[in-house]
Amino acid sequence: MEGTPKQPKNCSSLVEELVEQARKTALGGQVADYIPALAEVNPDYVGLAVIELDGSVHTAGDADIPFSIQSISKVFGLAMAMQRMDDILWERVRMEPSGQAFNSIVQLEWEHGIPRNPFINAGAIVVSDVLVSHYSASKSAFVQYVRHLASNSAIHADHRVWESEKEHGNRNAALAYLMKSFGNIESEVPEVLDHYFFQCSVAMSCVDLARSLGFLANRGVQPGTGERICDARSAHRINALLSTSGMYDQSGEFAFTVGLPAKSGVGGGIVAVVPDYGVIAAWSPPLNRFGNPSRAVEMITQFAQRLGLSVYT
Amino acid sequence: MEGTPKQPKNCSSLVEELVEQARKTALGGQVADYIPALAEVNPDYVGLAVIELDGSVHTAGDADIPFSIQSISKVFGLAMAMQRMDDILWERVRMEPSGQAFNSIVQLEWEHGIPRNPFINAGAIVVSDVLVSHYSASKSAFVQYVRHLASNSAIHADHRVWESEKEHGNRNAALAYLMKSFGNIESEVPEVLDHYFFQCSVAMSCVDLARSLGFLANRGVQPGTGERICDARSAHRINALLSTSGMYDQSGEFAFTVGLPAKSGVGGGIVAVVPDYGVIAAWSPPLNRFGNPSRAVEMITQFAQRLGLSVYT
Amino acid sequence: MEGTPKQPKNCSSLVEELVEQARKTALGGQVADYIPALAEVNPDYVGLAVIELDGSVHTAGDADIPFSIQSISKVFGLAMAMQRMDDILWERVRMEPSGQAFNSIVQLEWEHGIPRNPFINAGAIVVSDVLVSHYSASKSAFVQYVRHLASNSAIHADHRVWESEKEHGNRNAALAYLMKSFGNIESEVPEVLDHYFFQCSVAMSCVDLARSLGFLANRGVQPGTGERICDARSAHRINALLSTSGMYDQSGEFAFTVGLPAKSGVGGGIVAVVPDYGVIAAWSPPLNRFGNPSRAVEMITQFAQRLGLSVYT
Amino acid sequence: MEGTPKQPKNCSSLVEELVEQARKTALGGQVADYIPALAEVNPDYVGLAVIELDGSVHTAGDADIPFSIQSISKVFGLAMAMQRMDDILWERVRMEPSGQAFNSIVQLEWEHGIPRNPFINAGAIVVSDVLVSHYSASKSAFVQYVRHLASNSAIHADHRVWESEKEHGNRNAALAYLMKSFGNIESEVPEVLDHYFFQCSVAMSCVDLARSLGFLANRGVQPGTGERICDARSAHRINALLSTSGMYDQSGEFAFTVGLPAKSGVGGGIVAVVPDYGVIAAWSPPLNRFGNPSRAVEMITQFAQRLGLSVYT
Repeated sequence: MEGTPKQPKNCSSLVEELVEQARKTALGGQVADYIPALAEVNPDYVGLAVIELDGSVHTAGDADIPFSIQSISKVFGLAMAMQRMDDILWERVRMEPSGQAFNSIVQLEWEHGIPRNPFINAGAIVVSDVLVSHYSASKSAFVQYVRHLASNSAIHADHRVWESEKEHGNRNAALAYLMKSFGNIESEVPEVLDHYFFQCSVAMSCVDLARSLGFLANRGVQPGTGERICDARSAHRINALLSTSGMYDQSGEFAFTVGLPAKSGVGGGIVAVVPDYGVIAAWSPPLNRFGNPSRAVEMITQFAQRLGLSVYT
Repeated sequence: MEGTPKQPKNCSSLVEELVEQARKTALGGQVADYIPALAEVNPDYVGLAVIELDGSVHTAGDADIPFSIQSISKVFGLAMAMQRMDDILWERVRMEPSGQAFNSIVQLEWEHGIPRNPFINAGAIVVSDVLVSHYSASKSAFVQYVRHLASNSAIHADHRVWESEKEHGNRNAALAYLMKSFGNIESEVPEVLDHYFFQCSVAMSCVDLARSLGFLANRGVQPGTGERICDARSAHRINALLSTSGMYDQSGEFAFTVGLPAKSGVGGGIVAVVPDYGVIAAWSPPLNRFGNPSRAVEMITQFAQRLGLSVYT
Repeated sequence: MEGTPKQPKNCSSLVEELVEQARKTALGGQVADYIPALAEVNPDYVGLAVIELDGSVHTAGDADIPFSIQSISKVFGLAMAMQRMDDILWERVRMEPSGQAFNSIVQLEWEHGIPRNPFINAGAIVVSDVLVSHYSASKSAFVQYVRHLASNSAIHADHRVWESEKEHGNRNAALAYLMKSFGNIESEVPEVLDHYFFQCSVAMSCVDLARSLGFLANRGVQPGTGERICDARSAHRINALLSTSGMYDQSGEFAFTVGLPAKSGVGGGIVAVVPDYGVIAAWSPPLNRFGNPSRAVEMITQFAQRLGLSVYT
Repeated sequence: MEGTPKQPKNCSSLVEELVEQARKTALGGQVADYIPALAEVNPDYVGLAVIELDGSVHTAGDADIPFSIQSISKVFGLAMAMQRMDDILWERVRMEPSGQAFNSIVQLEWEHGIPRNPFINAGAIVVSDVLVSHYSASKSAFVQYVRHLASNSAIHADHRVWESEKEHGNRNAALAYLMKSFGNIESEVPEVLDHYFFQCSVAMSCVDLARSLGFLANRGVQPGTGERICDARSAHRINALLSTSGMYDQSGEFAFTVGLPAKSGVGGGIVAVVPDYGVIAAWSPPLNRFGNPSRAVEMITQFAQRLGLSVYT
């Protein structure tokens, strides 16, 4: 953080060093095991990709292997919904940090069915409801949106994960029905959950993730193509939300030690946005007690600290 | 946010314009009235001060009139405690956003007496306990610390406010005794609360506040004097905490619309840190439903947006 | 309560007096309006039936008109499930008063999907799950059970209410899915809810209700027929549960002022058990703020106090 | 429960048999150890006393040894306060079962400082506040009241326990200050707590307890002396409250298996009221996970079931 210049000379060698280091580190937790399809993932995978705004790509390890993006899909869903609704959306989901485990039903009850932010499950289910209402085929629209952002037409949902999520989705069903009882879900709950579980089951690689979210680091314009994905204000807002609420109940600690907008998923991925610099994506399946991939957290922490990338200084 | 350069030509005229605008705006709420000493404050006061790292001072309105800093004192208390304890401190208070009203006792019960962060009342009471344990005369140490930071030896506590806080401090007493029952308060509760209410009752002006917290915008070094107040890492950490938790249950929205580390107080003040640029302090007594001063929020929002100061782009 | 003998001479005239009084009383609340089928009920209905163990029947007002029994069905469901499972049942639902609004999801979350008792919605849904698992056709088994107890083969479910409940049952669906996520629902949730809403929609008159629950006042033996419905211990247990938890969040007050095991429903009915004496059933649709029918509460209160029927003296 | 007559021939031999049995039973838990004075009590004590309305006294074991009555004092405090205030009291404390651990602060916060009933700590603190406000010397008034009821002028508070309670009373202080912040405590908190801890530290034997509460079994008239202690309605109300809320979070289960109004204390005592029959008091220090003395629960359960004393049949 000590005034290091943001144009490192040898970013690629740092990326390789961090992957090597991560491989030597203890796994630091268990792979997500609430569904078989995730439980079977090899815990040894380690990938890291950094894509700078000028197009430079730095990768190491398993950066090209697709994995289940899980909650990272919430960022894409939110970006889609903000394009369709903008400010009305914020009457149905707040923008405040949740301060609790990522799927707590208690807070939802207290706050009359209005989730605290779009990155907890309840909030992402409201966003899914928005997408289901606004698109005739929300699932294919979601995949096309992600493919377009990542410039990769091969991206697809993992149907085994999708089915498996549905079978083990009772708590999310409880959240959805509770919100519906408060009038905050418009479509039928099974259809909304179907979309939600579908988007969680999309598989992407570190490179896909880093490329797809470049617009968040570039005031709304996709760096590779020059296409405006959203206005600068929306990019700013998504980054702000990621900064306070993207890392489950470890969001504050992540701001404290890293200081970057970021979103993790129980598939082991994390994507971090460095405004005006680029995007970092890391992958390692074993999760810590907060549900965040510990070795991926460590790689991003090191990368950000060595290059002085925190937004808070 | 759209790539505006961070060296505005006419910062002083903007500061004046914003105060003028605020004076024309509806009060937007009620002055804090839980104690008489605060309830009697003239709701029409409006002050704004910006101090840049190069020493430039821009002020308008009532920027030199001292007011009760209230919860802004939590920033000073934390900075003092971090110097004395650093990492051990974080076993007694977490660094996660609270996601609830600023004085909720419920969360404290659930989380076994460990407050979520140092900017909710419970967390600031733990910090007060640290100060009481580490200083033989914690109250005068606090005032001297603040005077030194603000280069203003006239700063003092308002004894009428202090007494009044103690008389109306039953909820804070409940928080303190609950934490003591969990073993998270070392000293006697009345002594800890005495310190806590004392620091809340210190009176400072916008200029005092902007000057005193310059080190947070400057990686730990006080801009005016060149003195190192804390290491860069500590300044970063305080900024990160302010970003996720400094504005009560409006912290997420403030990040969303403003994007700056900031702390508010029910005396009507807000101080916002702009890393590598300077500090903004605003004052207007009437509070919105979150307990934040609405016109002060508006002045800081306008200032940050016009100059493109958000840390998230 | 003052030692009045339990064999009143003119019980019939008291029953008539109380109905007359109730008709003169202000309605004291609103008819349940969460579903149209209930909202349309005439709020002026008033019925009262007392059936003593010796077979004497005392009725007044609309005591023969069937109405939606709603939560009173929980007593029948529990009696059926206790016959099938007995003590294993109490590992899936507790027997403690709930201390909160009758459908609070918060407590269920805290207590890991184990409802506090069978008379809150969550508990009755667990009981419904037991019935669905143990009967090949649980809905018709339920109706037959109730017909048999009431010696009235005309009793049936109101299909319009049943459908309507299903359409407005999102909160109950949330409870059911939350319990399923904790492993405390065995069958498929839609099937369990279908049974639950069905049993709520059964229509019975005050006379039906008073006759059907005679066995609870008679140590398990149905007074009219001499048939043993359950063992004395089970009758005792149901009475104990009714005493602490049968009147929603007014159960304590009802014990305080009346002192009888009782169950109310939002259809406006209440049935109260007087051990070794008989059963009282009252009906008046408008509900007080606790969801209990205010005029029915008043009739039962008067009847019990005038005849000194409380179990607590 | 099966229709056994309530005039057993050999009550005394049953009392002795039960104590003997209890002595052979495993301790079933730990002695209360939150204060040294209680932790040192010999866990092997077992006492049982039954006093019938006709004056017959049946005792066995350590029925004459005084022990710390702890929460049983809440019954005496309530009886005193009801004499002084009656119905106004119920605006400051409710009469509903609490449905949670006996000292939960969460519910108090939700319900704006109004405790659910007088037998949870918060409720008993409100009752203590009433006594402190109404008596110039509430502590000595309390002791005199209890001595009078028990016809034993030797009853006194154990000062070592009293001091010890005060030192470990932080959670109760939290409850009291929280209620004061809601305006539900009139006197100064330290004075109220002083009274509360004092009454908890009073020491009585099983015989004292059984004799002192005879009026609850006898519609308000003390059996031994014929003195009216309270009206029949008040006796009824206290019994009703004991039935739903006297045994901490095991109250429902106790109603389920025993069916008698009763109050337990962490000193190991339980007193159970049998309306129109008499009072049972049992003592054995080791506590189960609900904070109730397991062997005392068992003795009362056996006694009530063998003699068919439940009020619910």
